Amino acid sequence: MTRLHVPVRLRWSDLDAYGHVNNVEVLRLLEEARISAFWAHPEAEEVDAWPTAVLESGPAATSHTLVARQEIEYLRPLAYTRAPVRVEMWLGRVAGASLDVCYEIHGDVPGTPRTGPTLGEQPFVRASTTIVVTDAASGRPRRITAQERLAWQPYVEPPVVFRRR
Amino acid sequence: MTRLHVPVRLRWSDLDAYGHVNNVEVLRLLEEARISAFWAHPEAEEVDAWPTAVLESGPAATSHTLVARQEIEYLRPLAYTRAPVRVEMWLGRVAGASLDVCYEIHGDVPGTPRTGPTLGEQPFVRASTTIVVTDAASGRPRRITAQERLAWQPYVEPPVVFRRR
Amino acid sequence: MTRLHVPVRLRWSDLDAYGHVNNVEVLRLLEEARISAFWAHPEAEEVDAWPTAVLESGPAATSHTLVARQEIEYLRPLAYTRAPVRVEMWLGRVAGASLDVCYEIHGDVPGTPRTGPTLGEQPFVRASTTIVVTDAASGRPRRITAQERLAWQPYVEPPVVFRRR
Amino acid sequence: MTRLHVPVRLRWSDLDAYGHVNNVEVLRLLEEARISAFWAHPEAEEVDAWPTAVLESGPAATSHTLVARQEIEYLRPLAYTRAPVRVEMWLGRVAGASLDVCYEIHGDVPGTPRTGPTLGEQPFVRASTTIVVTDAASGRPRRITAQERLAWQPYVEPPVVFRRR
Repeated sequence: MTRLHVPVRLRWSDLDAYGHVNNVEVLRLLEEARISAFWAHPEAEEVDAWPTAVLESGPAATSHTLVARQEIEYLRPLAYTRAPVRVEMWLGRVAGASLDVCYEIHGDVPGTPRTGPTLGEQPFVRASTTIVVTDAASGRPRRITAQERLAWQPYVEPPVVFRRR
Repeated sequence: MTRLHVPVRLRWSDLDAYGHVNNVEVLRLLEEARISAFWAHPEAEEVDAWPTAVLESGPAATSHTLVARQEIEYLRPLAYTRAPVRVEMWLGRVAGASLDVCYEIHGDVPGTPRTGPTLGEQPFVRASTTIVVTDAASGRPRRITAQERLAWQPYVEPPVVFRRR
Repeated sequence: MTRLHVPVRLRWSDLDAYGHVNNVEVLRLLEEARISAFWAHPEAEEVDAWPTAVLESGPAATSHTLVARQEIEYLRPLAYTRAPVRVEMWLGRVAGASLDVCYEIHGDVPGTPRTGPTLGEQPFVRASTTIVVTDAASGRPRRITAQERLAWQPYVEPPVVFRRR
Repeated sequence: MTRLHVPVRLRWSDLDAYGHVNNVEVLRLLEEARISAFWAHPEAEEVDAWPTAVLESGPAATSHTLVARQEIEYLRPLAYTRAPVRVEMWLGRVAGASLDVCYEIHGDVPGTPRTGPTLGEQPFVRASTTIVVTDAASGRPRRITAQERLAWQPYVEPPVVFRRR
């Protein structure tokens, strides 16, 4: 069981007029974590990421990704902190042409061990995003290859369980 | 069957670097439509809204609302248009202390009849938001009253059916 | 003296944790007004705009524009309103390869006459943006033509006067 | 001459449909840097900041700040980078009840020495923000005290020089 633990910094502007991180902005934080995980950069080596081979993404890539679906539960309001929040990410499913990225947002400061389950307090947020892998040239969904499936295998865990459905 | 049809204007900044309305910004459009529907303003009479009685919302209200859950499916990419998109909204469920707002985003220009089912093309987006009604003073969930339930009844329809689950 | 009067709708998310339209978001409102003014769309005929000839902008255009400079004074805090704010726009200067767009944000509801000076209350905001016209192919600034200069002439007024400089 | 050097991370969503950091979002980056500089947090010790004494800001503060004016020049387009940009900040003026924060955005990766002038390449952006100090209770501007003026003195430098005015 290998979850990525990606630190994401809040911006003060993520707050809305109620003084908490706005529910829509929470999905922005997840987007940032997902981009970190999928899109390896030489200049960002320190960040926890899935193997580059996992998806040859980026502007010059032959594959693109589309967000097809999102589901999110807000368990506790998220206040402004200067310390980054920690987004735990794993793959809940690798299907024919799509994969489900699962997330939990936790508040513990960085320096926390980066693997293994999280003990203690419940997360602020639980969410999942279904990503469709497409052929960059045609824009059509394409099958995930056996090689990709193998590379992703260590990151697959049971999908996030939502309380309200 | 009475759906609200709320026009929402895009902003050019809703586009991301791929040139489509960003998937997170789509939830911003739904937020705008939901605020229009729940939060009646004298200055905004022309907008389709649920009866004010439905929720005594607003800054001075004795009830507040919390977003507890969202689910969204992106069926077609949404390009920039100067004409507003049309967000169809209905209530998919009225539970003890929460209600599910359901949405479809359609692209037809305003002037379209404002009630009745939509024929033809599939929507850009299908989504739902679970809203918990809270007591403004305590911040705790409170029971939806019989009177509120009655006022909401005409707007209740079967919940949105998601394709990917 | 012919100012454009462009209605721009606020979004609830324009508010920050202090409950007013955030100072950065104010520039977003000006961006929206500027895009309306420069970028004529058949579907948006009802909006006040400069003559299309003024700048052959848009995705297929042979000219692009770059924002080179902005200056803004916040005179009064802008609260959330459902009615659109009114952005008055004019050209403060047409230089060799650039032009200065000047703005005032006013709060009166639409239906106000769309030309002539504004009497009464001071605006919420005064601002200007210097836009450089570039050749789409090379990305380099290009000279504004005599024909463009002529078309813009009716919209030129003395530049906005800033109080704090 | 003591400039603060505040690292600010871009978000992918800072890009607009032209694939560069949007001109309005650049002011968001400056806002983030300014908040870091003025608003000391125990949890954010590693960040370069003005002495806490400089402004007793924050939610429980007896003084607030208002943004009264901004001016910004965009010298080079800012592309997406995973490494943070570096915002250099200093005070260009301390007036009776206001102060001018000056900024330059540079692209060099962190690890750069944090004081002294920057050699070499021109910045992406030059900007300044006039901040009015107000009394939290009355909301009115209040005089900057002799003690505050003394604490700020080491951070005062000649104001940023704008090329286009």
